[in-house]
Amino acid sequence: MAEQKLPTRAEDFSEWYNQVVLRSEMADYAPVRGCMIVRPYGWALWENITAALDRRFKATGHVNAAFPLLIPRSFIDKEKSHVAGFSPELAVVTHGGGEELTEPLVIRPTSETIIGHAYAKWIQSYRDLPVLINQWNSVVRWELRTKLFLRTLEFFWQEGHTAHATSAEAEAETRQMLDIYTDFAVADAAIPVVPGRKSLSERFAGADQTYSIEAMMGDKKALQSATSHNLGQNFAKAFEIRYLDQGGQLQHCWTTSWGLSTRFVGAIIMVHGDDQGLIFPPRLAPHQIVIVPIFKNDQEKARVSEVASAVLAELSSAGFRVLLDGREGVTPGFKFNDWEMRGVPLRIEIGPKDVDKNSVALARRDRPGREGKSFIPREGLAGAVRDALESIQKALFDRALEFRKSNTRDPKSWDEFRAAVENGFAFSFWCGSAECEVRVKEELKATIRNIPLEQPGGTGPCIVCGSASRERALFGRAY
Amino acid sequence: MAEQKLPTRAEDFSEWYNQVVLRSEMADYAPVRGCMIVRPYGWALWENITAALDRRFKATGHVNAAFPLLIPRSFIDKEKSHVAGFSPELAVVTHGGGEELTEPLVIRPTSETIIGHAYAKWIQSYRDLPVLINQWNSVVRWELRTKLFLRTLEFFWQEGHTAHATSAEAEAETRQMLDIYTDFAVADAAIPVVPGRKSLSERFAGADQTYSIEAMMGDKKALQSATSHNLGQNFAKAFEIRYLDQGGQLQHCWTTSWGLSTRFVGAIIMVHGDDQGLIFPPRLAPHQIVIVPIFKNDQEKARVSEVASAVLAELSSAGFRVLLDGREGVTPGFKFNDWEMRGVPLRIEIGPKDVDKNSVALARRDRPGREGKSFIPREGLAGAVRDALESIQKALFDRALEFRKSNTRDPKSWDEFRAAVENGFAFSFWCGSAECEVRVKEELKATIRNIPLEQPGGTGPCIVCGSASRERALFGRAY
Repeated sequence: MAEQKLPTRAEDFSEWYNQVVLRSEMADYAPVRGCMIVRPYGWALWENITAALDRRFKATGHVNAAFPLLIPRSFIDKEKSHVAGFSPELAVVTHGGGEELTEPLVIRPTSETIIGHAYAKWIQSYRDLPVLINQWNSVVRWELRTKLFLRTLEFFWQEGHTAHATSAEAEAETRQMLDIYTDFAVADAAIPVVPGRKSLSERFAGADQTYSIEAMMGDKKALQSATSHNLGQNFAKAFEIRYLDQGGQLQHCWTTSWGLSTRFVGAIIMVHGDDQGLIFPPRLAPHQIVIVPIFKNDQEKARVSEVASAVLAELSSAGFRVLLDGREGVTPGFKFNDWEMRGVPLRIEIGPKDVDKNSVALARRDRPGREGKSFIPREGLAGAVRDALESIQKALFDRALEFRKSNTRDPKSWDEFRAAVENGFAFSFWCGSAECEVRVKEELKATIRNIPLEQPGGTGPCIVCGSASRERALFGRAY
Repeated sequence: MAEQKLPTRAEDFSEWYNQVVLRSEMADYAPVRGCMIVRPYGWALWENITAALDRRFKATGHVNAAFPLLIPRSFIDKEKSHVAGFSPELAVVTHGGGEELTEPLVIRPTSETIIGHAYAKWIQSYRDLPVLINQWNSVVRWELRTKLFLRTLEFFWQEGHTAHATSAEAEAETRQMLDIYTDFAVADAAIPVVPGRKSLSERFAGADQTYSIEAMMGDKKALQSATSHNLGQNFAKAFEIRYLDQGGQLQHCWTTSWGLSTRFVGAIIMVHGDDQGLIFPPRLAPHQIVIVPIFKNDQEKARVSEVASAVLAELSSAGFRVLLDGREGVTPGFKFNDWEMRGVPLRIEIGPKDVDKNSVALARRDRPGREGKSFIPREGLAGAVRDALESIQKALFDRALEFRKSNTRDPKSWDEFRAAVENGFAFSFWCGSAECEVRVKEELKATIRNIPLEQPGGTGPCIVCGSASRERALFGRAY
């Protein structure tokens, strides 16, 4: 219940975020430091995200499976970059069933190692390839600074793991999954993202190539929203994942992995939310529509409730996720604010006059006040609702794209560059050197988010050292 | 690939089970003792189980959420029966991020404690009740003797946790969920189950009352297939889950929990499987139908493949889960055996003669050989397939029910009782004393599975001590 007003985003974006997550009952803090409870409202959003992704994964030939959460500590050591990347973040199980274990186990921080072990056993021949497996689970990484959804010790995600006969197939898979994440972000989450490859220093521990999608949040900072890794033969060699090719030769496989996590929930909140609270894109919203009945006395209540129930039934059977707020003891105004804070894209108000006129009032969450309100006839309501939801979905995307564009600059000097990354993104030429990358990080607290796949072409001076460069990178401060 | 014949169930039921699980690629052993990998074929079955249950949970007002897998060790100690029951089975995390933790954490063996902690925070008033939350996750219990699906260190399940204002509501919820498990088992898994309450000694650690559904496996042993617990106020008192009632008085809540796990996959395998391998009930089968094209030369192949693809498209768009086995280099006979072993309920064979006659051959998995085979016209195929699948679903249930009935006895003496529990179930009067229960366990290695809700009535002598008894219990040897 919204006792106090939320802080505005301009006042304190971080506190606005924390408050809106807690008050909307999307998540709560767990008793263990850095862990979160995803409450039913947050989980309903995550379920819609998983459904939208899982459909795409299955349509491209992937199947789901489940690998154990406990991994022998020694597995992590088998791939040299992997151990360096993950060792500091491990949760270690030393006792089981009342006894000390002979070998400590770790709770998976990611599953390349245990899956590599299984693939080595399962894959014998080129006929067994490709193997295209995904799993929905949670992983644990011992993070120091945590924030609900954005960075938690345990987080929920999917991790896809595939094995292929050739390098080209592995690269094609890596890119295909990046495309799927992009399509999901754009079409379902209404989030414009920039797909690109990560710089060497930002690659996944054990990958030959990491791609990401990056999005601009409401505070103009970047959020890495999903990653897709071409693991080359690194894990195949560490775990001996081999196959007999058609010529009878034993070859190492080429593997990939790719993931999207509950972090993406944070992206949805920070891209679309406003000072009133959450705004969910209709395709993923737990409730797409809330119906609020309005009445002053029992006689009005009876008339209004009958119509409200009929509208609920009509829209439910038309396939919408719709809720009737029949709470007693709170005013319609309270309900309006409450569901606005919780981000329901469309509100239907039904009062005695609406019943008389055989119409309802529609209020769009993305356009507060009179501008977003319209009165439409009951006849053909489902069609009007569908149109409104599609219009909201598009408006959210357009607004986020416009926001990103207007806060992405092409600076010509170091001072302009500094100003750009302090207030959004810079899309600037980069010579490719680690030295320039480090200087940006140290002096400006900004990073190369990725080297976008879409390049305007041409050459130009590296924004840091001025030497001739062939590619632009996306620079920004990141979560 | 089925290199060797499976052992028959009569020869070695346990080895038949292990072999069929491994060869059908439902699951595999993990590198950590007692853990399992659920492979895509097994997970596809589990996904269908989860969908069938989740639909029922949501239709009765439950919502999903996600609580953390890490629980402070001290939480387990707060409920005295709970700590006694679960302490010996805990996996303990002592180190995180390279440092020793000040308080050890356990990986959840079940979530009553951490959820109790959250509910205490979330529930203030009678208006907040009932709370009806479920979660799909995995838990870890350090078991010594393990078997794929039936008992593993980590297993997958759902755990529902609800809080109510009154004892009566909690009991109604507990029974409602038992009914839902029963309905799911019967309608979707084609498994006849006996719903009943557990004896005191078999109650969940911390419950006032535990109900279970029990099923008879193909070796006449019992498998507890799901449980539903009325937790009374035990956890509410241990975690201070309280609410202000309508009179302004602070009251403790009444809570329940209920779960069904990947163990149920073992039940499906052991109830329906035969000496050729798995038989999946059509409503849950990963593939309901496999199409096998039959041809001798390229010309036949072209004609047959065209029709096979058309049948695939037709049945897919009619909503069936159907697979076309287009593998090269293996014979149709190999494919028949392979998919029989994997339990696909219905096979469609299409050869050149079938193409000529514009018909296909249907082969039912539940009736091997000529008896289960029929030739049906292409026209109206989807309808015939639907009828066949429904008929198989019903036949599997009827067969399992008949098997259980014919192996459930009403013994009149201790010797008859011994013979009954060595070869099935005994449904016998029991006086209710723990002494008699212990004697059965020690002398006959059998347990009271439950006290069935459905009782024939009347009174009779306790099968153990002979004293007058009012209820019958279901006795059997159990997994």
